[in-house]
Amino acid sequence: MNIFKKTTMIGIGLIGSSIARALKKKRLSKKICIFSQTNKTLNKARKLKLGDFYTNNLEKSVQNSDLVIICTPISAYKKILNRISKNLMQGAILTDVGSTKSTVVDTFLKIKKPNFNILPAHPIAGTEKSGPESGFAELFNNRWCVITPMGRNDNKSLNKLKNLWNKLGSKVQIMNATEHDKILAITSHVPHLISYSIVSSTLASNSKQKSQIIKFSAGGLRDFTRIASSDPVMWRDIFLNNKSNLLKITKNFEKSLNLIKKYIKTNNEKKLKEIFSNTKKIRKLIEKEKQI
Amino acid sequence: MNIFKKTTMIGIGLIGSSIARALKKKRLSKKICIFSQTNKTLNKARKLKLGDFYTNNLEKSVQNSDLVIICTPISAYKKILNRISKNLMQGAILTDVGSTKSTVVDTFLKIKKPNFNILPAHPIAGTEKSGPESGFAELFNNRWCVITPMGRNDNKSLNKLKNLWNKLGSKVQIMNATEHDKILAITSHVPHLISYSIVSSTLASNSKQKSQIIKFSAGGLRDFTRIASSDPVMWRDIFLNNKSNLLKITKNFEKSLNLIKKYIKTNNEKKLKEIFSNTKKIRKLIEKEKQI
Repeated sequence: MNIFKKTTMIGIGLIGSSIARALKKKRLSKKICIFSQTNKTLNKARKLKLGDFYTNNLEKSVQNSDLVIICTPISAYKKILNRISKNLMQGAILTDVGSTKSTVVDTFLKIKKPNFNILPAHPIAGTEKSGPESGFAELFNNRWCVITPMGRNDNKSLNKLKNLWNKLGSKVQIMNATEHDKILAITSHVPHLISYSIVSSTLASNSKQKSQIIKFSAGGLRDFTRIASSDPVMWRDIFLNNKSNLLKITKNFEKSLNLIKKYIKTNNEKKLKEIFSNTKKIRKLIEKEKQI
Repeated sequence: MNIFKKTTMIGIGLIGSSIARALKKKRLSKKICIFSQTNKTLNKARKLKLGDFYTNNLEKSVQNSDLVIICTPISAYKKILNRISKNLMQGAILTDVGSTKSTVVDTFLKIKKPNFNILPAHPIAGTEKSGPESGFAELFNNRWCVITPMGRNDNKSLNKLKNLWNKLGSKVQIMNATEHDKILAITSHVPHLISYSIVSSTLASNSKQKSQIIKFSAGGLRDFTRIASSDPVMWRDIFLNNKSNLLKITKNFEKSLNLIKKYIKTNNEKKLKEIFSNTKKIRKLIEKEKQI
């Protein structure tokens, strides 16, 4: 059943620990090595029995691994690559799970003459929780995983990684990084930016009002607070790494908001009903695609 | 066990049908009369056995009822009141479930010398679904119901209505209509306005992009599409009836959004991390209050 002999997880948060759990449960890797730079996280991973080896030595962690998965915030990639590139096994697959892909591909392209295969990837799955204790093996079931090949890799490696993600429960889509970042700005990054903004705007309220906001949050705000409780460092990195798409798509959102505001100000009942009826249709398509 | 002898539900959508189901299940009203203006909805309600009588005659529906609950979009209230005011039983309780309260109170205040008790109310509960088939008796469990008395009613009626909502599973908060509308703009109306805007902004995409947006919606957009699939007429009415609070709170949101955008443009990593860490705290308070 094993597809890989030794998998190294660099970073073991929500996504990393979910992958580790699924690898183990489905016996997809003979051995799993877990790297984290903090002993606190390593100890958590050890207690949860997420792997076979645990180390805070980055260079050593990747030795003899035929699969290395970077599961850290994007801002850590450069340092990581500087330290592991020389130690990666010939023919190994190096992949990641980062939520933006263009700058990630650029970073990977700086590795000089790699004798291993680099295949950036992004599983479109997650929850608002962070840390190794939050993961679960079923996180990727029926979700999409996007792989953005860089043109250097062989087909065998690509098929191996596709096979892995299929076994983890996901459907795989091959895309280029530029296209990925445009679509994800719409489906994920701008929704997060807006959620952080709306929740942040409530923080200025006085304490009496704040307690009422908490009480009555079930009317809609609650769902935004869920999204806006996602990992701060991870999301800071995503926003900074997909800046131009993010700002462009935000502008589209602002145009829509301004139009609806105009119709509210002018009591345009017909147009409002029309817009709110149309938005219902997208939901139905998502339900049909089983992405609920 | 019955608190009321005959309850008339005017409108039998998500909220109305949930109340009817709970009234029946918990035997809180001896008889339930259901009014709807369309035969299609009436037939659905009959098939679902939501009441004891079904009628499209508004005037007759309220006769001999000691409780009348208006569960229609707010834009229908004036016409309804014109037709039922003369037929309401002396001492009856007239209440509603509308999501804005100031204009509703104004509308109720126009009833000349009522010999019944008017108690506007708003259960902070719901889903994105509409229609009598979408309701369920447990919808109000552990949710808040706000009652905004108008100063005309007696304490006995207020206590009776509070008791009813408690029995329906809710906690009750007495507030004035102005305060209610300010808070709900924050916790519900602006989140809906923003959800409609973001989903609406994706509708302009071409069909290839749209299919990718649907596929990858699990990254955040999905949750907005849920909110933006709420009943179009109901939400049009809410926005138009809480216009000034809505626009004011939207301005606060826009300020937050602009600030975060500024920090993204200037790569202010420290400030971004700080903001995204603070928004996490609100979520924890909501979890503590069990409004999840």
